[in-house]
Amino acid sequence: MAVRARAPGKIILSGEHAVVHGSTAVAASIDLCTQVSLRFPIDSESDDSLIKLQLKDMALEFSWPVGRLKKMLPELGIPQSSTPTPCSPETLKSIAALVGEHNIPEAKSGLAAGVLAFLYLYTSIQGYKPATAVVTSDLPLGAGLGSSAALCVSLSAALLAFSDSVSLDFSHQGWLTFGESELELVNKWAFEGEKILHGKPSGLDNTVSTFGNIIMFKSGNLTLLKSRMPLRMLITNTKVGRNTKALVAGVSERTFRHPDAMAAVFSAVDSISKELSTIIQSHAPDDLSITEKEKKLEELMEMNQGLLQCMGVTHASIETVLQTTLKYKLTSKLTGAGGGGCVLTLLPALLSGTVVDEVIAELESCGFQCLIAEIGGKGLQICFDASS
Amino acid sequence: MAVRARAPGKIILSGEHAVVHGSTAVAASIDLCTQVSLRFPIDSESDDSLIKLQLKDMALEFSWPVGRLKKMLPELGIPQSSTPTPCSPETLKSIAALVGEHNIPEAKSGLAAGVLAFLYLYTSIQGYKPATAVVTSDLPLGAGLGSSAALCVSLSAALLAFSDSVSLDFSHQGWLTFGESELELVNKWAFEGEKILHGKPSGLDNTVSTFGNIIMFKSGNLTLLKSRMPLRMLITNTKVGRNTKALVAGVSERTFRHPDAMAAVFSAVDSISKELSTIIQSHAPDDLSITEKEKKLEELMEMNQGLLQCMGVTHASIETVLQTTLKYKLTSKLTGAGGGGCVLTLLPALLSGTVVDEVIAELESCGFQCLIAEIGGKGLQICFDASS
Repeated sequence: MAVRARAPGKIILSGEHAVVHGSTAVAASIDLCTQVSLRFPIDSESDDSLIKLQLKDMALEFSWPVGRLKKMLPELGIPQSSTPTPCSPETLKSIAALVGEHNIPEAKSGLAAGVLAFLYLYTSIQGYKPATAVVTSDLPLGAGLGSSAALCVSLSAALLAFSDSVSLDFSHQGWLTFGESELELVNKWAFEGEKILHGKPSGLDNTVSTFGNIIMFKSGNLTLLKSRMPLRMLITNTKVGRNTKALVAGVSERTFRHPDAMAAVFSAVDSISKELSTIIQSHAPDDLSITEKEKKLEELMEMNQGLLQCMGVTHASIETVLQTTLKYKLTSKLTGAGGGGCVLTLLPALLSGTVVDEVIAELESCGFQCLIAEIGGKGLQICFDASS
Repeated sequence: MAVRARAPGKIILSGEHAVVHGSTAVAASIDLCTQVSLRFPIDSESDDSLIKLQLKDMALEFSWPVGRLKKMLPELGIPQSSTPTPCSPETLKSIAALVGEHNIPEAKSGLAAGVLAFLYLYTSIQGYKPATAVVTSDLPLGAGLGSSAALCVSLSAALLAFSDSVSLDFSHQGWLTFGESELELVNKWAFEGEKILHGKPSGLDNTVSTFGNIIMFKSGNLTLLKSRMPLRMLITNTKVGRNTKALVAGVSERTFRHPDAMAAVFSAVDSISKELSTIIQSHAPDDLSITEKEKKLEELMEMNQGLLQCMGVTHASIETVLQTTLKYKLTSKLTGAGGGGCVLTLLPALLSGTVVDEVIAELESCGFQCLIAEIGGKGLQICFDASS
């Protein structure tokens, strides 16, 4: 009995930082996914049976005997898969003790939090049933591309696929999408996982990862929109680590010092986000050609980048990416918190592959990591393994 | 009988481009000047006597026999130094014919216009009196630093110094300043010269050059303000020629495409200009230390630069200057039209000379020209030559 679930990462197309001050932001899914495959053994179950977590990309494996989990987490004995519940501080403490029994390098604190979320989601949805979960991902970790949300979504979906809360056609061949209410359930569970990973997540990352497409968000409200144009971006990971909290605080301090100027800046970002979402939603044949739409998006990206510079969240590494792509007449903007992290470069549909190769070679020679992604595609998908 | 007049160039501290759309801008004089020395010969005057113009920096000399001017420009026979008058199209045509008799390379079209302005101001204020005018300048030409206005101001002042419209103490030793009404008169004549050079100048450049200090301008209104803090800037001339009209048109087109976003951007610039002028005008001991003021100015410069990027008027050469100075933790913004031209870098009072030397060396190795200037100093000054 096995299932694979895959869920995409996300980028912020416009409005990062300004969204904290009430502006509209637009996020979109990317076709880079985290995949969880979950396999339940056919053998009979005993307290020595294991719940295994394999993180393929890091060549790491963790496992817990079912008996140990029963002892440490008695309160999670009866799976409540239909009612996503926050992890209580006591449970979190017990799970932390379990995770602490494994030797996780301190430098990988995000990893430990990921394992915590795994154990909480696992036991909450599936109880103590032994199984092996294998995680692989196209997404760089901690780069602002929503890798943790993609993990929580794909994991929740794989776990829910075999729960009473979801009814699926197990005979279906190939990738399949959940129904609306199942997606809602996955999204809520993933959000609980994200809370363990991030404290106070906005819910944006897991929502984009679950539903795909594009999402407009403003003052905590998320609106799902349908992307109606193909859009391809080069995502350059500067690999410069950034302190998101410090960057957000820096913008707030600047806003405190220059309230009028910054209010106007946020208002400009709000307009840009609204324009951008209109363009992405409009049907191609309606009015503008793909090339015209791309030109408009590029202009909005350039404007948004200027406004982010005005907020003080750019970084020398980001500027290097901007300068490099500009040489090829390509437009870029930072995505996410800034101060390093990732930069988006729009790749027009008619751009030659040779140019793309050249840009990537030049960026990689600066020590950056380059990924190409389609924007605004599918969200969560699952697939039953026919052989099992 | 000889006089020297010197008049400073200018920089735009904030608000370029946005000022066209109703925002406040702030300009300031720099202690880089154009100097005109004017000497009337003691010999008796004949139609063969010459009016000579020496452009020392370019090693060029032009001269016209007084008789030739009388013939070509009979309408300017009686000097009207007290009433600045626009050059009529007919007069301009006659002067152009006179200038055309000299061989001025086509590439130096700005030079030809400068010679036109010289002849118009000269004959309008001094008639056909033979003399030699020698021009030298610290200012690069056509780099947006107000070199042509500095020429028109210093020339008008030198010519007016020996006219009936101005009464001065010829026995004064050293540099001396005109009175308020004389400055107004100089400024008006210089504006007529600027019209010959630029068609429809805003009057900003000649006003800053005449009065010095800082000037706030909004919707065509100029307000003279008193700078009360020492402020030193590195001015980097990228030497990239730019098309000011095309850049201004580009911003207008972007405003047409994105009216809401751009209105907010212009409003942000307006706030920045107002804050900036408040800081420069405030007495140092009042509230903030010089270092604190510099920090605030740097932040406002960074913000303004971001907004200029948002308007689409930056350029790869400008970004190179920004990146280079950022390495030394210095803040820069473009000044003037953008698209090349000059970039300002604030040099804090406590910055070591070694760092300044290093930055300049690195910028010059990119092929840029570096100048250091004090901001907001004196305007027009004149000096009578004691030996004559």
